[in-house]
Amino acid sequence: MRTLTFYERVSTAFHDYPSLSKLLVLFTVSGGGLVAYAEANPTNGAHAVASSQSEYKKKVVVLGTGWAGTSFLKNLKNPSYEVQVVSPRNYFAFTPLLPSVTCGTVEARSIVEPIRNIVRKKNVDIRFQEAECYEIDAKNKKIYCRSSQNKNFNGKEEFVVDYDYLVIATGARVNTFNTPGVEENCHFLKEVEDAQNIRRAVIDCFEKASLPTVSDEERKRILHFAVVGGGPTGVEFSAELHDFVNEDLVKLYPGVKGLVKITLLEAGDHILNMFDKRITAFAEEKFKREGIDVKTGSMVVKVSEKEISTKEMKTGEISSLPYGMAVWSTGIGTRPVIMDFMKQIGQGNRRVLATDEWLRVEGCDSVYALGDCATINQRKIMEDISSIFSKADKDNSGTLTVKELQEVIDDICERYPQMELYLKKKQMRNIVDLLKESKGDVAKESIELNIEDLKSTLSQVDSQMKNLPATAQVAAQQGTYLANCFNRMEECEKYPEGPLRFRGTGRHRFHPFRYKHLGQFAPLGGEQTAAQLPGDWVSIGQSSQWLWYSVYASKQVSWRNRILVVTDWTRRFVFGRDSSRI
Amino acid sequence: MRTLTFYERVSTAFHDYPSLSKLLVLFTVSGGGLVAYAEANPTNGAHAVASSQSEYKKKVVVLGTGWAGTSFLKNLKNPSYEVQVVSPRNYFAFTPLLPSVTCGTVEARSIVEPIRNIVRKKNVDIRFQEAECYEIDAKNKKIYCRSSQNKNFNGKEEFVVDYDYLVIATGARVNTFNTPGVEENCHFLKEVEDAQNIRRAVIDCFEKASLPTVSDEERKRILHFAVVGGGPTGVEFSAELHDFVNEDLVKLYPGVKGLVKITLLEAGDHILNMFDKRITAFAEEKFKREGIDVKTGSMVVKVSEKEISTKEMKTGEISSLPYGMAVWSTGIGTRPVIMDFMKQIGQGNRRVLATDEWLRVEGCDSVYALGDCATINQRKIMEDISSIFSKADKDNSGTLTVKELQEVIDDICERYPQMELYLKKKQMRNIVDLLKESKGDVAKESIELNIEDLKSTLSQVDSQMKNLPATAQVAAQQGTYLANCFNRMEECEKYPEGPLRFRGTGRHRFHPFRYKHLGQFAPLGGEQTAAQLPGDWVSIGQSSQWLWYSVYASKQVSWRNRILVVTDWTRRFVFGRDSSRI
Repeated sequence: MRTLTFYERVSTAFHDYPSLSKLLVLFTVSGGGLVAYAEANPTNGAHAVASSQSEYKKKVVVLGTGWAGTSFLKNLKNPSYEVQVVSPRNYFAFTPLLPSVTCGTVEARSIVEPIRNIVRKKNVDIRFQEAECYEIDAKNKKIYCRSSQNKNFNGKEEFVVDYDYLVIATGARVNTFNTPGVEENCHFLKEVEDAQNIRRAVIDCFEKASLPTVSDEERKRILHFAVVGGGPTGVEFSAELHDFVNEDLVKLYPGVKGLVKITLLEAGDHILNMFDKRITAFAEEKFKREGIDVKTGSMVVKVSEKEISTKEMKTGEISSLPYGMAVWSTGIGTRPVIMDFMKQIGQGNRRVLATDEWLRVEGCDSVYALGDCATINQRKIMEDISSIFSKADKDNSGTLTVKELQEVIDDICERYPQMELYLKKKQMRNIVDLLKESKGDVAKESIELNIEDLKSTLSQVDSQMKNLPATAQVAAQQGTYLANCFNRMEECEKYPEGPLRFRGTGRHRFHPFRYKHLGQFAPLGGEQTAAQLPGDWVSIGQSSQWLWYSVYASKQVSWRNRILVVTDWTRRFVFGRDSSRI
Repeated sequence: MRTLTFYERVSTAFHDYPSLSKLLVLFTVSGGGLVAYAEANPTNGAHAVASSQSEYKKKVVVLGTGWAGTSFLKNLKNPSYEVQVVSPRNYFAFTPLLPSVTCGTVEARSIVEPIRNIVRKKNVDIRFQEAECYEIDAKNKKIYCRSSQNKNFNGKEEFVVDYDYLVIATGARVNTFNTPGVEENCHFLKEVEDAQNIRRAVIDCFEKASLPTVSDEERKRILHFAVVGGGPTGVEFSAELHDFVNEDLVKLYPGVKGLVKITLLEAGDHILNMFDKRITAFAEEKFKREGIDVKTGSMVVKVSEKEISTKEMKTGEISSLPYGMAVWSTGIGTRPVIMDFMKQIGQGNRRVLATDEWLRVEGCDSVYALGDCATINQRKIMEDISSIFSKADKDNSGTLTVKELQEVIDDICERYPQMELYLKKKQMRNIVDLLKESKGDVAKESIELNIEDLKSTLSQVDSQMKNLPATAQVAAQQGTYLANCFNRMEECEKYPEGPLRFRGTGRHRFHPFRYKHLGQFAPLGGEQTAAQLPGDWVSIGQSSQWLWYSVYASKQVSWRNRILVVTDWTRRFVFGRDSSRI
């Protein structure tokens, strides 16, 4: 047992000294890269302020173990809650590496970590249940769950969990836009199992094409890989597949070398349209050079067993492409349980669950929603303009002076982030500049506004409202934010720290959630990655690839994942990707 | 691309200098172990003597990519063959590590290697087809194959392959001995997929048992793991599972800690009965100490969804055990295609395909069978006794002198290996000792034997005939042997090197196959392994575990596998086994 103890000690060392993490990152980026970018998790802030040991622990139920749920659990430090996690997956998966799993650049197991392991050493009472929630009863504060396992099972499959607070972080499902044949014939790329299936399917195509009885035409069809959706996932998968085929498979399947074709179908005018134009152009050019056929402006209208029908967006022309394997990676849809819940709480006509800026589900007490299953319904400044006016007009004079306005402007900017964006867009420093623009060039002190003046000054502000993208980054930040709110719930109840309540009295308990965009990557294959970092800094090439390696390694949820992913990359460099059909 | 080229060079270096392999082994066994044991593959013998470039290449068809088939392909060096491999698995799997895969000590992908990769750099024309042979037509020298893939497939699913030589190495399937319910309710442990399913099933049981609605009794049932068969596989799996539970799972599932139970059921009197008694006793003692319930003398007669019925061999008493998951690892059976083939060639009443000592299927020209699907039907010395007598009696005197006998004794020993075993058992040096025993203590020169004397002298020899065990070691040695025969087919046709043909004229082309037992391991968990090495050398404990590590690492089919397996072991030491349900 001596040996084990020694190793356990090593393993504990990794756990206890997060700074060791930096060392690995340094190792990872030995070829160059931005270590500083890899911001480590803020674990320095000691273990939560323990609240007075009350008799009754409030029950928090968390649905889902994706980015949002896991980040919430990781950051929850207040031991005054009793937390129950319900999810059909007993692990967290580092989804941005899923495209790498499809081709074996990284192994599936390297990017997953059991949720029990993540929450094990916390001082919060967290229990996990592998089950799916199929109904939320917000009125009675209950959720109904069903175990995902049926076979060989005597116990009741269904059970009910009470909650005081419910945190919904179930994520989204694939949206097929009701295109016929997609469910039956396309692969998706949302879950770990999807990636594993795609990997097997790619090998299958090559084995099929190698059979002696297959005609040349059929062989070409079987080796035609269609990717629907030119977003980051679709683009990265196409690039990975291209590398897999050209770096590894052609060596093993020399007979089918010239027949492989990859087509990327995108309904919009460009692929990667959420990125800077330079990146889009570079990606399109690179794919063209490498023989990946990028078909933009072409919408998939039907998928049959062997053909994809597309419609040209400009001409309306319908054409069909024979294919061997198709991956559908466009759009996100709402899960049925969330849909039902939305009807229940009067959000039936919405696309996703709406929350306020504190991630509380609208029209529903004690329920929070974050990640891909929810969207923040940012309040419009124009809806509250009269309340803002009367709140600011402290002397009830019916007009606002600049001084009066300046006293509330920070609260306005915090409550309505579009205000800040608007000023930034107009390249103005503060509200005085805005007033000057609307009132003409007069002395600051002499400006007085009535309600109509204020309305007209701020009339364009709401145009700057933006929905957050459905990314891992947003979900993770929301999880951390919400955990911090839960950690200081009692404290902030007493000493609220948020902005002024314009329509009520006092202050909001917490600062509203603010997303901080840290940049985005688009790996393009062949050791080239495009990176768009804050401040519109664009970087394309091998150095971004190393940045990508270092960021993705440092962002792993555990030391185990980190080392596994790095060794997987090393394995791939040395031995290539494996093509065994397992 | 510069980077890639560098790494490719490293990778090539590994391929080209097998001696580097020794280095890794040294590294692996740093804790101690027998490096010398890790006999490397004999690759020193330069690349085969190329036969004269004839116009027609003889077609060799190989069925199966297991130990026997792969070892045949690896060692085949004569470029005068055109080889076609047909197997439903496009990879070779290092099956002795399957029990480790069940619990994640080693990853499935680490023990597989694509067969195309194994044969890629050879100078022999080898092609692979992922399909299953469903009929062998030995009369017309054809095999009928079916692709294992149906979906999205236009080409004909079935095809026919002609052969000049057929090498059958399809292995065996699990034998349930027609016990009711086994197929439906038990896991097997023969294929990589089986091991992956077992891994998921174990985690499933722990998740099920953690659900809130499960009763305590039910929880105990769910966490009862039954292993049927006390052979090396069953024992190793029980030990692995015990370690997995106690080293890793109890930390993550503290609530179900005391409820886990492992039962090992064996119909015989002892587990590991093919091993030395000291090993059996140690294993039984160790399992007892660790709480693994070893039930010997207890035969499984029925398996229902939740209960296993067993019959006590001594008392005949039937009892039933509630269980959560069962693994069936006893007995090997014949595959249907082999069964059909046996009927076709008049072996219908046999259990497995019978071959002669040169691995040729009896009663069937140009067909060879090796590995678990075949057994060598060793010819009895008493059947050929008259032929032997007349062949040895060169002067046709009707009696044999010692000199005459000594001239053929080497051929007899080679042709009938039981002769050698018999002498060894009797602790005799040579045949003269045997004659002395039978004729009394007379002068060597004066001994003369007639046919009846010879018969009575050798009458007990055939009792020493032994069937070879169905192990990877036997299969691999048979593959190598057969490849060497194929490599020197033409050469040995001209200059036969085998023993005298007693019933015909001249000599046999090749030496008959001789199995060289290199020893056997039985890992018992907790870093303890039992090893039984040639010469009845028995070693149990941690040093054998390191020997096991070093041998298993060195025996891997490729450098990729070797490094993957070693890093998997290292990962396990540092991070434990993963319990994500993927």
